[in-house]
Amino acid sequence: MILNERIRKTLSQIKPLDREAMEKVQQRLDMLTKPQGSLGRLEALAVQLAGITGGSFPPGVKKKVVLFAADHGVVREGVSAYPQEVTVQMVDNIVNGGAAINVLSRQAGAQVRVIDIGVGSEMSLDGITRAKVRPGTGNFSREEAMTRREAEEALLVGISAAEEEVASGTRLLATGEMGIGNTTASSAVMAALTGYDPALVVGRGTGLDDAQLENKVRIVERALALHKPDPADPLAVLSKVGGLEIAGLAGLILGAASLRCPVIIDGFISTVASLLAVKMSPLAAEYLIPSHLSQESGHALLLNHMELSPYINLEMRLGEGTGAVLAMHLVEAAARILQEMATFDEAGVSNKESAGKESGCKKEQV
Amino acid sequence: MILNERIRKTLSQIKPLDREAMEKVQQRLDMLTKPQGSLGRLEALAVQLAGITGGSFPPGVKKKVVLFAADHGVVREGVSAYPQEVTVQMVDNIVNGGAAINVLSRQAGAQVRVIDIGVGSEMSLDGITRAKVRPGTGNFSREEAMTRREAEEALLVGISAAEEEVASGTRLLATGEMGIGNTTASSAVMAALTGYDPALVVGRGTGLDDAQLENKVRIVERALALHKPDPADPLAVLSKVGGLEIAGLAGLILGAASLRCPVIIDGFISTVASLLAVKMSPLAAEYLIPSHLSQESGHALLLNHMELSPYINLEMRLGEGTGAVLAMHLVEAAARILQEMATFDEAGVSNKESAGKESGCKKEQV
Repeated sequence: MILNERIRKTLSQIKPLDREAMEKVQQRLDMLTKPQGSLGRLEALAVQLAGITGGSFPPGVKKKVVLFAADHGVVREGVSAYPQEVTVQMVDNIVNGGAAINVLSRQAGAQVRVIDIGVGSEMSLDGITRAKVRPGTGNFSREEAMTRREAEEALLVGISAAEEEVASGTRLLATGEMGIGNTTASSAVMAALTGYDPALVVGRGTGLDDAQLENKVRIVERALALHKPDPADPLAVLSKVGGLEIAGLAGLILGAASLRCPVIIDGFISTVASLLAVKMSPLAAEYLIPSHLSQESGHALLLNHMELSPYINLEMRLGEGTGAVLAMHLVEAAARILQEMATFDEAGVSNKESAGKESGCKKEQV
Repeated sequence: MILNERIRKTLSQIKPLDREAMEKVQQRLDMLTKPQGSLGRLEALAVQLAGITGGSFPPGVKKKVVLFAADHGVVREGVSAYPQEVTVQMVDNIVNGGAAINVLSRQAGAQVRVIDIGVGSEMSLDGITRAKVRPGTGNFSREEAMTRREAEEALLVGISAAEEEVASGTRLLATGEMGIGNTTASSAVMAALTGYDPALVVGRGTGLDDAQLENKVRIVERALALHKPDPADPLAVLSKVGGLEIAGLAGLILGAASLRCPVIIDGFISTVASLLAVKMSPLAAEYLIPSHLSQESGHALLLNHMELSPYINLEMRLGEGTGAVLAMHLVEAAARILQEMATFDEAGVSNKESAGKESGCKKEQV
């Protein structure tokens, strides 16, 4: 795999989780006034956060969802229920604070950053980061989505975003995207990387009927037959059948992992981006924090493939980062449990192990 | 079913959800800048909240988890990993703000109210509601847990708690409990009401080993064989093999439903209480807001039996109301979406239906 020097450097900076920090947090969790392990995956999350940061992850850190917007040439094949102009309109709506991601981010105490990484038309909006690699991808059912160099550039936009965020104090990231047509590109990337049949991977996106769904499957099949992307070369898959926001998301995830910043993965598109990230750096897998199970049919299959188990099931299929931002409450809960709960000693509560002695019961019977 | 007059009155006040309010909210949801239905069960939750309240459920309402504490005579049979004294110690810890439920409630902006409905010993604590029906239940593997009259009294404690809360401005309730031995009582109630084999219903509680689990199953089987509670008479089931906090929770749920106040159901014990409530008033089923899937093995079976689908899966098994309080963030999200999101018109975003006309595409192709 031939890689741009900066991408290679980022990958080399991704290290295993900090086992010592994780053990320390596990010991603390076992001293808190609850049966050991009874907070389940909330405890595992607290341990993972310690391993990622290599230290403490306190409550109330600065949180941000980074939302990459881009367009897709493949929408000309009728793969989306919405026309391409909706990408720009929704970016406008997000900048004005009226979209679902704004509402849920305000609730979670998170900021929203929008990056134009490849919207089809020019936008004269304040409040977005301009990092357009190209104005939308090519129609990958007939040509490559982008060049390999553009794919690298888009990855670097994501890596830079992670670097800027961490430098400005963000300590919890979430992935978001907006791009009419991007479930099609994500399905193609997933099928190419995993070998799953497109019919299993392609879903209804924002609302296709049966005939439209069948067409979408055929388009993905045709693209894969045309390009035959090498699953061992994630950048080739990305450039041939990917999307600019998918590349940006993968870059954000890799950048965050290289800087030991936790990043919450949203739904189908974000999880596909995280698969790309893991293919480029297997160590990145330990850094992924899943959020929700999307209604998009390929998502359950992909989460299972990646051995990720979602925390929330609301049957959402909106994207934008909405599921990831809802999971911020759980990340915050894990941080608070660790910091605020009393220990058995502090509270004078009998622990399971000590209880037998104190009460004079036989240990096996209590 | 012979019932106390006040209980009968509460049941008669439980009405169907307000369909008109639900339709109004559904119409509003369909105008918001997202594909219709794309927020999935978050939208269904907003609709349910409208149906429950019969009007609007705004963000930021006063929230409270009502936690019933009680002891269980059946712990003398070695069914719990912890000794009975832990109930009092944990109530003390909760009153002092050091338990998991305190931490998660503070995060969710909710208050915690503790009601001593049947703790085994006297507590000289400030900050708890004293409503002890009796100091712990009888050992139901040998005698009835409580009299029918005591079961009614305990139900009325819960109904009164709901009334007091709604009168003092609480608009979102959550169920919580603390009681060493209460998964055993809950398993017995569930098996009695549903007819499921105790071996399927009984779980490890706060942490039993295989031999202890086997003993717990035998104790429940023995109790059911001894009392043969009539599944058509929920109060008989409650008095013969139930628990005082389970009765209180069922009362809280019925009281909340009668007053059109949403109530979030926590894990296994709370869900068993909600089954009791639904057996007493089938209309109460529409008022239930599930929260999480507990690790306690009977919980998945019971949720399925009641056609409830949990929102969160963290494999927790702590009780106290911890899962219900985590779900408050989702209830709040549903309220905020409805109030804060822009409509298609406001934001100038093309809707799916209008898009075809505007862009000149054939509607079927967009």
